[in-house]
Amino acid sequence: MHDYAALEALAEIIRRGSFEAAAAQLSLTPSAVSQRIKGLEERLGAVLIHRGPPATGTETGLRLMQHLDQVRLLEQSLETAIRPKAGPAVLKIAVNADSLATWFMPAMTALPVLFDLVIDDQDHARDWLRQGQVSAAITSNPNPVAGCDARALGHMRYLATATPEFHARHFAQGLTAQSLAAAPTIIFNTKDALQMRWAERATGAKLRLSGHRIPASEPFAHAIELGLGWGMIPESMALPAITAGRLVTLAPGQPFDVPLYWQVSRDIAAAIAPLTQAICKRAAEDLRP
Amino acid sequence: MHDYAALEALAEIIRRGSFEAAAAQLSLTPSAVSQRIKGLEERLGAVLIHRGPPATGTETGLRLMQHLDQVRLLEQSLETAIRPKAGPAVLKIAVNADSLATWFMPAMTALPVLFDLVIDDQDHARDWLRQGQVSAAITSNPNPVAGCDARALGHMRYLATATPEFHARHFAQGLTAQSLAAAPTIIFNTKDALQMRWAERATGAKLRLSGHRIPASEPFAHAIELGLGWGMIPESMALPAITAGRLVTLAPGQPFDVPLYWQVSRDIAAAIAPLTQAICKRAAEDLRP
Repeated sequence: MHDYAALEALAEIIRRGSFEAAAAQLSLTPSAVSQRIKGLEERLGAVLIHRGPPATGTETGLRLMQHLDQVRLLEQSLETAIRPKAGPAVLKIAVNADSLATWFMPAMTALPVLFDLVIDDQDHARDWLRQGQVSAAITSNPNPVAGCDARALGHMRYLATATPEFHARHFAQGLTAQSLAAAPTIIFNTKDALQMRWAERATGAKLRLSGHRIPASEPFAHAIELGLGWGMIPESMALPAITAGRLVTLAPGQPFDVPLYWQVSRDIAAAIAPLTQAICKRAAEDLRP
Repeated sequence: MHDYAALEALAEIIRRGSFEAAAAQLSLTPSAVSQRIKGLEERLGAVLIHRGPPATGTETGLRLMQHLDQVRLLEQSLETAIRPKAGPAVLKIAVNADSLATWFMPAMTALPVLFDLVIDDQDHARDWLRQGQVSAAITSNPNPVAGCDARALGHMRYLATATPEFHARHFAQGLTAQSLAAAPTIIFNTKDALQMRWAERATGAKLRLSGHRIPASEPFAHAIELGLGWGMIPESMALPAITAGRLVTLAPGQPFDVPLYWQVSRDIAAAIAPLTQAICKRAAEDLRP
């Protein structure tokens, strides 16, 4: 068996970024925490923590932390009352910002764990799974990562939107490669290719877009309502503003549908089955088939 | 003078994470982009790009990119019509998520640039400035970073909130070190010490809190409304839910005020004066003195 007291110290250091913070959390002295980590590293013959600051986990350290999280989840699903002092189970998952801002969150009440959310683009969530840094993820790629199962959730529909004033100023002559190149867009971050993919499909041309980078869902939509640029917003966020006349769609009848999948590591699939069920139910209600 | 064509290639590579994406954006071949970077690196005797993937800027590379952004801003503030093909000015700034979710964004319309927003905790925004990765930042620390000026904006007031049901289940016997240790909290990320600082002040005790990590403002508040835990929300976000009876404050009359400052690199202070003015005006309207 592994030394779980040492694994707990390891996980706290990685979560909190320092030996001191982990020691305070565990009511230990920093030197006691340090000795546990040293002992673990000697037994395993591997460095587990980059000392920092901030202290971060090595690849092996992160795998061990994930193992601890999985053991805690399994313990919780067994409802053992034997270790009353065990820390609460933590479930680390990757979710795309727009799912989090729209349909995802009510499903989180289905499982009594502590969620550690990583927000990343649905096109890049598989990397977190592959690296063993999360136990489950919302992805846009149907291919399961090794050791995981993938379930189709449906499609998230995006609409290209802008204010009526922005539309009149930039697109009065229509949506062309020229007008799109001259009009500022809003993108979420450098990983966000949605605007480019939609614009190239709408015009059939290779484009150069330039835009603001606003890496949060509601501020992204707010920037569009402020007239800073045009961008792709989930239909459910855009419709109230369109109905109220604050936004218009750039090309009615040309939405962009992004498929979403829920990928879960098989090791914990049984333990988090109620969450998976709740996610599938929410998705069926809120996403397009 | 520096070779600005090469600097533009450098900035695009760092922004887009690959030589290929930068080449496409600049309508060049990847080998032309690669030659520009090599030439620049040889002239400067320094590596500017970690080749990746993804390609990232070295410290020197990031400084050069910031220089280009500053030159573009200065060019724009001069309103030169001489370089009609110059890329639009980019202003990279660090803003805390809660400011972005509440009072900050309307100020962005005051300056016709492309904003590249970095979202980070107000306690850590100075690091971005110090490393030269942003030109201005919202910070909680009044001490200006070298080369920057700091202006006091006022205080952001936070309220400790939970649903009435959560409050009745966990705090019927009052707010104590024991009840707080047993009740899940919501924290933004590992850098977020707000909940801990408030709880330790409220109880006068050293505490162990455990909680969900939800690194986005609106989802953070949504998690509290779903009953997943208690947490600190900006007053302006909390009040509508409190008035509607969906949330209660854990300790009425015990808010937590976080001072905010706008720190601007002196190199660009004049060029972005209209933004600074708009930020100060918004802050005066929305923050506490």
